Amino acid sequence: MSSGDNITGELPQDDAYDLDRKLVAQILEAVEQGDQQTLTELLEDLHAADIADLLEQIDSTERTRLIHLYDREFDGEILSELDESIREEVISILNPAVLAEAVRELESDDVVDLLEDLEEPQQEAILDVLEDADRVAVEQSLSYPESSAGRLMQREVVMAPEHWNVGQAIDYMRASEDLPEQFYHVVVVDPRAHPIGNVTLGRIMASRREVPLTDLLEDTFQVIPADQDEEDVAYAFNQYHLISAPVVDGEGRLVGVITIDDAMIVLDEEHEEDILRLAGVGEESSLADKVIETTKRRFPWLAVNLVTAVLASLVIALFEETIARFVALAVLMPIVASMGGNAGTQSLTVAVRAIATRDLTGSNVWRVIRREVLVGLVNGVIFAVVMAVVGIVWFGSPALGGVIAVAMVINLVVAGLAGTVIPVLLEKAGIDPALASGAFVTTVTDVVGFFAFLGLAAIVLL
Amino acid sequence: MSSGDNITGELPQDDAYDLDRKLVAQILEAVEQGDQQTLTELLEDLHAADIADLLEQIDSTERTRLIHLYDREFDGEILSELDESIREEVISILNPAVLAEAVRELESDDVVDLLEDLEEPQQEAILDVLEDADRVAVEQSLSYPESSAGRLMQREVVMAPEHWNVGQAIDYMRASEDLPEQFYHVVVVDPRAHPIGNVTLGRIMASRREVPLTDLLEDTFQVIPADQDEEDVAYAFNQYHLISAPVVDGEGRLVGVITIDDAMIVLDEEHEEDILRLAGVGEESSLADKVIETTKRRFPWLAVNLVTAVLASLVIALFEETIARFVALAVLMPIVASMGGNAGTQSLTVAVRAIATRDLTGSNVWRVIRREVLVGLVNGVIFAVVMAVVGIVWFGSPALGGVIAVAMVINLVVAGLAGTVIPVLLEKAGIDPALASGAFVTTVTDVVGFFAFLGLAAIVLL
Repeated sequence: MSSGDNITGELPQDDAYDLDRKLVAQILEAVEQGDQQTLTELLEDLHAADIADLLEQIDSTERTRLIHLYDREFDGEILSELDESIREEVISILNPAVLAEAVRELESDDVVDLLEDLEEPQQEAILDVLEDADRVAVEQSLSYPESSAGRLMQREVVMAPEHWNVGQAIDYMRASEDLPEQFYHVVVVDPRAHPIGNVTLGRIMASRREVPLTDLLEDTFQVIPADQDEEDVAYAFNQYHLISAPVVDGEGRLVGVITIDDAMIVLDEEHEEDILRLAGVGEESSLADKVIETTKRRFPWLAVNLVTAVLASLVIALFEETIARFVALAVLMPIVASMGGNAGTQSLTVAVRAIATRDLTGSNVWRVIRREVLVGLVNGVIFAVVMAVVGIVWFGSPALGGVIAVAMVINLVVAGLAGTVIPVLLEKAGIDPALASGAFVTTVTDVVGFFAFLGLAAIVLL
Repeated sequence: MSSGDNITGELPQDDAYDLDRKLVAQILEAVEQGDQQTLTELLEDLHAADIADLLEQIDSTERTRLIHLYDREFDGEILSELDESIREEVISILNPAVLAEAVRELESDDVVDLLEDLEEPQQEAILDVLEDADRVAVEQSLSYPESSAGRLMQREVVMAPEHWNVGQAIDYMRASEDLPEQFYHVVVVDPRAHPIGNVTLGRIMASRREVPLTDLLEDTFQVIPADQDEEDVAYAFNQYHLISAPVVDGEGRLVGVITIDDAMIVLDEEHEEDILRLAGVGEESSLADKVIETTKRRFPWLAVNLVTAVLASLVIALFEETIARFVALAVLMPIVASMGGNAGTQSLTVAVRAIATRDLTGSNVWRVIRREVLVGLVNGVIFAVVMAVVGIVWFGSPALGGVIAVAMVINLVVAGLAGTVIPVLLEKAGIDPALASGAFVTTVTDVVGFFAFLGLAAIVLL
């Protein structure tokens, strides 16, 4: 049925689900030859998500040719799966008739997802090809704030009044003409359409006809406000192991349902964003980006780092005379700053992650700060001893060894403190700690590192 | 029903799902007072996952008291939700009778998850309290390799022979006494028990009795080998938007089923591991860890960084004479190294992430390397101009400005190259690139940065 079996079967365990290189080569060969039949056969067994990956991995000339050759076989699922960075390019390459056909195949929530990231003219081109009913549904979804539960939900919900029993629910579903393609729960609602619980289809199947639905409600039940941020939605699914959750409007009335597969995609995106932000990379970056886009995304963080580095240089400049007399200081000074930077990054990463998972809260923030400072102290003392020995052996100066040792302890303690306090303060100020903590913490550890080491040296050695 | 409604209702949007500080204070007050009734009432409405979070956030004295006071109310779900770092502590605090009761409530796959991370004596204590049938099921699961699909799956599967129609499937389920608590699909199998497809309960509900099940198979269907790594399982669920997938043994026979909620937990853990490894923090760290454990986890990466930093110092030491004559070099040299380190971290994070999501493959590795080098070149030229101006204005030396400019370009190009090539080579060598790339890349950018800057200065300025 699916290509996955194939791929998994042929390759060693480690490469499970990698795109087969041989297959990619055959596909590119068919594109090169303009061999439409072979291309169609090769792509036929691939899942849309794998075709999308393939399109992302080949270069833009190959991509254009492949899409023209594949032509009418191109389906909407592939568009849905494509990374935003090349989605616009692909849409502009597609023959308008093929695009219209592809979009019409999609469920309305997938169309919303597709439209969100497009520029106005492309958005309208796509809205124009939709049938009226779909178009209205899509426009309603787009009326919810970006990245909200309202955008994420599907509108098709199977619901039942609270006084029904299993038999009535089964009869209703069996008689219904337009059940959603995929659904896992019946949402039980009160007369004002407020959801009061979920019953899984499995429990309905397993229960006698006369059992009231309210006896079968799942223990864990969360109602999601339509304007809730999708990040919070993903957190709720992950925390409470939800499979689906009803979405309600401002009056608490059921307006849709979010399922775990959508929440999983959001969770994955949020993680990606955090990892990239921590590294100072613009979060929407992708391997398919061009050099200029990538340069633009990387530039701001490097510019911030330049300012940080120049600040550190200004500190060093204060001690030019000291360095001129003891060049060994210039040799050793980057070590203290570098160790502080690394220890600070460790602390801040743990703090940023714990804030994201709601594990760092008012209840434990002081205990965590104390712990980080103590960890900095213990590691600082160990590395201080090591560096004192290095200083003495290398430069034959116990005074220099003592200076670097004390500076090391100071900087690692400061790193633990800054690495925890800075993300917490940024979060309180409403700034994403993943984005900004790195620059602040490194500035602190660089400035303190150089100042402590060179300042102590100026006092002790002169 | 659930506390979530409550919490969401009372707090502003941003704090959705945070543990309410007031509630935490009330709980700790009840613990302090030894007021069992109030404590039980306060915890009654909380989800097990939230109680586990609470136990992680309070200190160990409070934790012990709370658990003793809560006593028989303590249930197995809380144990399941607890972070490994304090799970052992909690198990050793629990009254053995309470522990036995708590464990007996759990599904067998949750018991497996619980046992995996415990030491031998605690494992046996728990196995001892299980009923024979459960114990056998748990021991069978534990016979699969750690972190494999076999450990992740549940053994209860609803299956149907391929010749059945909708009516037969419904009649079978309605008559069956022991359907699983939660299930979403019927797995259709051939006579050798090889799974050939999934049918959702929703489609069964929506179809007439005489429709063959094989007409209702889902388009996307993946069979998971029992020995597949759980990381690959999570990838498959995320890539193909699976809700559940059958697990097969070496002969391709159905042995269990994995559902998306389990895959989501693995995905979350894998992300956590990547983020922490990239920052040089031992991956199993948690906020509840003690100072000594945390110090031990952070130490190795700092030790590696010390070696890196000393290497860089050795490079600087080669140019002691040059620095002694031009102290401005000591002031400016950290800038070149720092910019290289940051640019390298950007490249390596993108590469590590792309390797994890299977987006960086043999098909595009050369194109990505070329792009990273070009991005390094463009950013390098921009920052070279800035630093040349800084060098000239600050130190009045065009030669110094020229030296730092050229060194900047060299180091940013090297950063792009090393940041991509090193993770790819580590991956090929079977080493987790998230874990080791940082140390290698920083070493390269430090050594090249100092060598290029000071080396050029020695040639041009002397």
